[in-house]
Amino acid sequence: MYTIGIDFGTESGRAVLVDVRDGREVATAVYAYSNGVIDRTLPGSSTPLPPDWALQDPLDYLAVLRQTIPEVLQQSGIKPEEVVGIGIDFTACTMMPVKKDGTSLRALDAYRDNPHAWVKLWKHHAAQPEADLINETARRMDQKWLDRYGGKISSEWFFSKALQILKEAPEIYDAADRLLEAADWVIWQLTGVETRNACTAGYKAMVQDGDYPPREYFAALDPRFADVVDTKMSRDFAQLGDRAGSLTPEMALQTGLKPGIAVAVANVDAHVTPPAVKVTDPGSMVMIMGTSTCHMLIGTDVQEVEGMCGVVHGGIIPGYYGYEAGQSGVGDIFAWFVNNAVPPEYHDAARAAGMDIHQYLESEAARQKPGEHGLLALDWWNGNRSILVDADLTGLLLGATLATRAPDIYRALIEATAYGTRIIIEAFESNGIPVNELVLAGGLPEKNQLLVRIYADVTGKALKFAGSAQSPALGSAMHAAVAAGVYPNIKAAAEKMGRQKDRVVQPVAENKAVYDKLYAEYKTLYDYFGRGQNDVMKRLKAIKYQAHS
Amino acid sequence: MYTIGIDFGTESGRAVLVDVRDGREVATAVYAYSNGVIDRTLPGSSTPLPPDWALQDPLDYLAVLRQTIPEVLQQSGIKPEEVVGIGIDFTACTMMPVKKDGTSLRALDAYRDNPHAWVKLWKHHAAQPEADLINETARRMDQKWLDRYGGKISSEWFFSKALQILKEAPEIYDAADRLLEAADWVIWQLTGVETRNACTAGYKAMVQDGDYPPREYFAALDPRFADVVDTKMSRDFAQLGDRAGSLTPEMALQTGLKPGIAVAVANVDAHVTPPAVKVTDPGSMVMIMGTSTCHMLIGTDVQEVEGMCGVVHGGIIPGYYGYEAGQSGVGDIFAWFVNNAVPPEYHDAARAAGMDIHQYLESEAARQKPGEHGLLALDWWNGNRSILVDADLTGLLLGATLATRAPDIYRALIEATAYGTRIIIEAFESNGIPVNELVLAGGLPEKNQLLVRIYADVTGKALKFAGSAQSPALGSAMHAAVAAGVYPNIKAAAEKMGRQKDRVVQPVAENKAVYDKLYAEYKTLYDYFGRGQNDVMKRLKAIKYQAHS
Repeated sequence: MYTIGIDFGTESGRAVLVDVRDGREVATAVYAYSNGVIDRTLPGSSTPLPPDWALQDPLDYLAVLRQTIPEVLQQSGIKPEEVVGIGIDFTACTMMPVKKDGTSLRALDAYRDNPHAWVKLWKHHAAQPEADLINETARRMDQKWLDRYGGKISSEWFFSKALQILKEAPEIYDAADRLLEAADWVIWQLTGVETRNACTAGYKAMVQDGDYPPREYFAALDPRFADVVDTKMSRDFAQLGDRAGSLTPEMALQTGLKPGIAVAVANVDAHVTPPAVKVTDPGSMVMIMGTSTCHMLIGTDVQEVEGMCGVVHGGIIPGYYGYEAGQSGVGDIFAWFVNNAVPPEYHDAARAAGMDIHQYLESEAARQKPGEHGLLALDWWNGNRSILVDADLTGLLLGATLATRAPDIYRALIEATAYGTRIIIEAFESNGIPVNELVLAGGLPEKNQLLVRIYADVTGKALKFAGSAQSPALGSAMHAAVAAGVYPNIKAAAEKMGRQKDRVVQPVAENKAVYDKLYAEYKTLYDYFGRGQNDVMKRLKAIKYQAHS
Repeated sequence: MYTIGIDFGTESGRAVLVDVRDGREVATAVYAYSNGVIDRTLPGSSTPLPPDWALQDPLDYLAVLRQTIPEVLQQSGIKPEEVVGIGIDFTACTMMPVKKDGTSLRALDAYRDNPHAWVKLWKHHAAQPEADLINETARRMDQKWLDRYGGKISSEWFFSKALQILKEAPEIYDAADRLLEAADWVIWQLTGVETRNACTAGYKAMVQDGDYPPREYFAALDPRFADVVDTKMSRDFAQLGDRAGSLTPEMALQTGLKPGIAVAVANVDAHVTPPAVKVTDPGSMVMIMGTSTCHMLIGTDVQEVEGMCGVVHGGIIPGYYGYEAGQSGVGDIFAWFVNNAVPPEYHDAARAAGMDIHQYLESEAARQKPGEHGLLALDWWNGNRSILVDADLTGLLLGATLATRAPDIYRALIEATAYGTRIIIEAFESNGIPVNELVLAGGLPEKNQLLVRIYADVTGKALKFAGSAQSPALGSAMHAAVAAGVYPNIKAAAEKMGRQKDRVVQPVAENKAVYDKLYAEYKTLYDYFGRGQNDVMKRLKAIKYQAHS
C-alpha cells in the first residue's frame, strides 16, 4: 500500500510516492510553476505590481497535481489501486479569494486583470499598513490572543492580506464568496469539500481556544470587515490527519488515481515536518533550516513564550499544543555574505579546489577553534523574528581588525545564528517547556558540517537529523496514510514511516565552555540593541528612509 | 638660491630641491632603501626575527644622501654653489645605538649580527612589555608628564625601545655610547655635530618643560637604566629651524654640495608638514592622511587634551606648543576593506570601467545621500589612538541588511573615520584650543574626493589642501632656508615657501544636519564600547589569545 504526499513550495510542487509500511520513498516528481512567483507584472500584462507584492497563480497548483501524480505512478510502476491516500502541505499564509463553488477569481475573465484576484503568496509584504492596524487595534482592545503570537501579527498573515483586499479592491472583496488558504483550496479541488485546516487557522488566522477574535474587533478594523468570518470563512476546523474527503472522479481522471481514495486535511510545510522526522512528543525541537529557520516544538499545555510565532492547539500534532518560533535570516545571511563580502581570492581558491564557495569557506573556518577569530555578530540582517519580533533590527559585526579574513566572518555569522537559536531554546525552557534535543531538517544541515558542529557546541544539545531530504512531502504522505485509516493516528504513522538518520552529534564540552562566554557577550548586545537600551538600528532605518524619500 | 629637503620614509628617502624665493620644487629624486624594512631576518642571515620586529639599516640613510642629492643637482642643472642649506625629516621614533664618534653599532663587525645593533624603525612593536612597565611605573610614581601623552606611552617610543635593548641585549646597551633618533644621527653624519631635536625629544622621549623624567623614575624601571639620559643621551635640545652645523668636507664630497653650507636641525615628517602647508599659527588643524592620520595643531599655551599623542613646546613651531593627535587606522581600513570584503563583481566592474577598485567604489558610493545606506561603523580596525588610546579596541559595523552592498560599507567606513576626526576636534575645542579649519595633506585627500566631501560635511569645517604632493620634503627645505639665514624664522619661510591649493571645500548644511544625527549615534557607541560600559572588544581579544595559545 502506498500514499502520495505533495509539498507545494514557493517555486514548485513536489510529489513523493511512499510505501506506508516503512516510509520508503519510491518515486519523486517536481513541477516548477509556470508563472512562478509573480512579483513584477501579472502574466500577460505590462503593468508593474507595486513594491513588496508577491503572487502565485492557483492554476499552477492544479498543474502540479496533473503533472506530478501521473509521473510518480509511472516512475514507480505502482498501480493506482495500490495508492490509498493523498496528502498535501503548503507554504502559509498563502491565501486567495474564490467563488462559492470554489472557482478562483483569477480564473474568471471579470477579475483576472486585478492583482487582488490572484493568490497572495506567503512573502507578499504589501499589507504592512493593515498589519499595523491589526496590531494597534488588538493592543487597544486588549485582545488576549495577541500574546499567543509573540505580541505581533505579521503582514504575511491571513487577516492582513484579507484586509488589504478590502481596502484596496473592495470589488474583489465583494466578489469573493470565500477567502481561504491555497492549501485548503487545493483540498477543495481534490475532494469537492471545503475544509479549513486547524494549523493555518491557528497560526495564521488568529484562531485561539477554538475561535476567531470577536466581531467587534473586526468591526473596529473596518466596519465592512465586521462579518468577514461568518460571510467568507468558516468556524469549523479540520484536524490534521483527518480525512478531508474523497478524491472526486474528475480529479481521479486528471491524476490517474482511483476515485474515492482518502484525501487528508491540508497542512503547512514546516508543521508537517515533525512527524516526518519521528517527532510527535514534547522534548524534541525540530528545526527546518534553509534561508530562514522554523523551530517546531510540541507541548502538553499552553504557555506564552516571548517572541514565538504562535502556539496552536493541534497545530502540529492533534491533542497537543504546537509551538512555532523562527529566525528570519539564516541561510539568507550566509548567501548575502558570499555574494557581497567575499573577495575574489577566495572565489578563485574555491574554484581551484573544485569546491563551491560555501564549502571552501566552511573548510577554512573549520580549522579554527571557538573564539579564535575574535568576532561577534548579531544575526539580524533580515530583522529578528524570535524572540524580539522586530523587523527593524539590523545586522552587526564586531571585533574586526586588519587581520580579519573572510572565513573568520563566515564562521562568526554561523555562530551568530546558533546563538539566536540558543536564545529561543532558553525562552522555551524558562517557561517550563523542555528542549532536550534538536532534530535538524532542511537543506543547511545537509550541506554544512561546520554549522552542525557549531550548533551542537553553542546550544549544548544533542543534534539528530531528518532521514529524508524531502521531509515535508513525506510528512504529507504520512498524514494521507492516517486519513486512509492505515494508521490510527499520526503518532503511529510516525513510528513506522517517520525517518531519522542514525547519526547523533553531541556537543564538545571544551567548545561549549568557550561558547558559553561568547554567548554571554551575544546576549548582552542582543538586549542592548534589541530591547530599547540603544535604538540606534531603528534610528538609522528612519534616517535611511528619509534619505530615500 | 636653493635648499634641499630630504624626507626619510619607511621604504625610501626622497630629496626635493626647492627655490627659496617661492618654494617651487625644481627637482625630486627618490632612493628605495636597499634593505627596506627588515622584519624577517637580518640581511645575509637566515635567523628569523621575533614577531613584531621592524628594523632599518642606517647605511641605507647614507645611501639616500649619496644618491638623491647628486641626482636633484643634475636634474635641475642648479650649480652646487646656489644651494645654501639642507634639511631633513624622518619617521619617528626611529632610533639606534652608536659609538662615541657616531659610528653605528650595525657597521661594526663585533655587533652586526645582533639585531639590537640595528635601527629600530617606528613600527617596531616588540617593546610592548617595556612600554607596559613604563606606563605602570609612571602611574605608580604619579609622573605628571604622562598626561601630556594622553596618559599612555607607546611601545613605539624612545624609552620603550631603549629599555628593550637593555633587557634583551645588555651587551649592546653597554657598547652603545649614545642612543639617539636616526634623524639626529643623519644630521650628525652631515655635520659632525651631535644634536637632539626638540621635536622627537618632546614627542618620543618624554621631555616636558625642558627636561626628561627624573633619575629615580628611570631607576625604578631598571637600576641599570637609572643614568640612561646622562650617559647615553643629552639634555641640550636643538630648536627646529636652527642650524645644527655645517656640511662637512667629506659629506660635501659625497653629495656634490659645497662644504660649510647650513644643515638644519632634524625634524619629523608629520611635524614638518604644517609650515609646508603655510600653517604656523593656532586655529588650523593640519591632517596628514595616509594609512593612518596625524593631526597637528598649534597652541599658545599648554592644555591636557584627552587622548592626544603629545603636546610639546616648540614641537612644531618654535615658541608655540605643538599638539599631535592621531587615528591609528584610516587608509589602512579602506585597504583592508577592498582586499578582504569586496566581491568579484565590483572588481570586474572597476576593471571594465578602467578604474581602480577604490575609485570605482568611491564613484558608486558618491551617488548616495548621507544616511542612505543605513550603516554605522566604529573605525577601530587598528585600535583607537586618539582619544581613547586603546589598541585593544576593534572594528564594528552596524546596520547591515540583506540589501547592503559593498559601496554602502565603503562609504560607512570613510564616514566612521570622519566621525573619529570630529571626536578629536571636539576634544581640542572643549579644552579651549580652537580648530577653525582643516588643512589636508598626504595621499588620501588627493585620491578620494568623496572622502573630502564627507570630512567637510561631518566636521562642519572648511577644508584646505596642501599645495605640494611632497609636503614633508618641502617643509625640510624650508627649515634649511631658515637655518641658512634666508628667512629669520619658519613663519617667514612659510609665508613665502609654504603652499596651499587655491581650493576650499565648504560643508553643505543639509548634509551636515544628517551627519550631526549620525555622529550622535557614533558617539554613543564610541562611549559604550570605548569607555568601559561594555568591554566586549577586550574580552573577545582575550578569548582570541587564549584560543591561539
